[in-house]
Amino acid sequence: MPGPGEFDIIRDYFSGAPQGAGVVLGIGDDCALLQPPAGELLATSVDTLVAGRHFPADGDPALIASRALRVNLSDLAAMNARPLWFTLALTLPESDADWLQAFADGLFMCAREYGVSLVGGDTTKGPLSITVQVTGSSAAPLRRDGARAGDAVYVSGPLGAAAAALPVILGQCEVSDREHRRALAAYYEPVPQLHTAAAIGAIATSAVDISDGLLADLGHICRASGVSAEVQIDALPVAELARALAGERALELAATGGDDYQLCFTVPADKLAELEALAPGAVRIGTVIAGDGRVHNRLNGENWAAASAGYQHF
Amino acid sequence: MPGPGEFDIIRDYFSGAPQGAGVVLGIGDDCALLQPPAGELLATSVDTLVAGRHFPADGDPALIASRALRVNLSDLAAMNARPLWFTLALTLPESDADWLQAFADGLFMCAREYGVSLVGGDTTKGPLSITVQVTGSSAAPLRRDGARAGDAVYVSGPLGAAAAALPVILGQCEVSDREHRRALAAYYEPVPQLHTAAAIGAIATSAVDISDGLLADLGHICRASGVSAEVQIDALPVAELARALAGERALELAATGGDDYQLCFTVPADKLAELEALAPGAVRIGTVIAGDGRVHNRLNGENWAAASAGYQHF
Repeated sequence: MPGPGEFDIIRDYFSGAPQGAGVVLGIGDDCALLQPPAGELLATSVDTLVAGRHFPADGDPALIASRALRVNLSDLAAMNARPLWFTLALTLPESDADWLQAFADGLFMCAREYGVSLVGGDTTKGPLSITVQVTGSSAAPLRRDGARAGDAVYVSGPLGAAAAALPVILGQCEVSDREHRRALAAYYEPVPQLHTAAAIGAIATSAVDISDGLLADLGHICRASGVSAEVQIDALPVAELARALAGERALELAATGGDDYQLCFTVPADKLAELEALAPGAVRIGTVIAGDGRVHNRLNGENWAAASAGYQHF
Repeated sequence: MPGPGEFDIIRDYFSGAPQGAGVVLGIGDDCALLQPPAGELLATSVDTLVAGRHFPADGDPALIASRALRVNLSDLAAMNARPLWFTLALTLPESDADWLQAFADGLFMCAREYGVSLVGGDTTKGPLSITVQVTGSSAAPLRRDGARAGDAVYVSGPLGAAAAALPVILGQCEVSDREHRRALAAYYEPVPQLHTAAAIGAIATSAVDISDGLLADLGHICRASGVSAEVQIDALPVAELARALAGERALELAATGGDDYQLCFTVPADKLAELEALAPGAVRIGTVIAGDGRVHNRLNGENWAAASAGYQHF
């Protein structure tokens, strides 16, 4: 039996989207009309999540929606941009009213939490996939290409939880109910580090969000900035959930596991006291050095090589 | 054999994208950084094209890319917005170097033609689908909700060509080489009506682009504006290709066929001489009347009912 058509889906599930500042005309015309904040740059990013690759097709639709928005908000955090608007392109194998209602509820709960307005979308029939594009604005954007030799390297918080949670999400191992809930939260509800970004925006020289794994993402900073970095692996803040679920592999997951969406950023040596007052949860993990873009890892005074080189999308 | 990874795809095929005005930082960081024009509103729209539904999976990748961008630029035309930037979320079953090169070439040729910059993207593995989001700006946006009883209804140019071309695109009928080339152009290379929009922007009261079929899209104007419309079906400008390919069905296709991407717009009765000087190719097809959102069709003095009610995406 056919489900609701495209126009009904938008009207029934998404036209009640929360609308914040700057939205002159929201969903329902050929385009949304938006008033950008004067004197700031816009920051925009797009991510696609495909069922069976980025989330299980039978996952909770509210959590899937929340994750789709959060991973994009994290890209705004990495640039020190304040969230304004987002669009949703949803491809669905069939239009299931219960699934859509739960998806919209999860999406809007997250949108309200972060003060971001849904301003457009498209629904098409096909294999389940979700593309979200967020736009924010910034008076002091952070980029990947500003790290300089001598800067300190920081991460904004604990790492490894999402990678350790993945086997639980995929149903590959049995855990307690409490650990199952914590695994769901770690994987589906990462916290975009917008507050940390705002705190460090004026003193950090570069930033990236950790989606592909710390060492891979720090590598992006190094190559963009034309420097290298030395990381003290034993200094990494390992998430408690990673220790609980992954045991001895927790440190490896903290170094190379993706999907935590903490920030990795660099700060000039003469700003460290200021940084630690502004972002007390941040942890220093290494130092920027002159070099060719490589990340050098040290553990207990020895060179350390990761068993995996970070998550590859293909 | 695995193809190139995500980072290589972006670097190899899309990092050479043409970059126009307002692009402070393009592809390669967590977000693009963009400088919006002062004193204008932004207009943004997103569309997903799924292989097997919106284009044949074995179609020419350069033409598929061109169509994906053009249908989005048409949404900007419908709002009288000038194209600035776009993003591309590409889901591919495998990464085929020849396909990607042809796709990028077609995309950039179209982007250069319309002066729009690719500023971000995402590539994921999965069934072929293409999501493009365009952003433009406008000092005088057109909306769907401004039509008033007494306004004249216009279309910007000939209709029915893309619908008549569809059986050729799908390989369901044999035509001459010349008609085959014309069918490919009508379906894959619709011309976003940006010049017409700029010409009529100051006097039109509403506008929509014709993606779902004239009568369906005029219905969107009527419902958004709280009016009805009377259309003289015999006044419709029928595309020559529609007559050549569809014969007697050409008029029906002009009324209900999708994918032409002409504009339908309304103009106050006292501005018709001005309109016809500004947009000499536009054709008057009816009149806005008081009513409840319905479109009433007349042919040779009789009521006329379409056999189909416009394209449904689900």
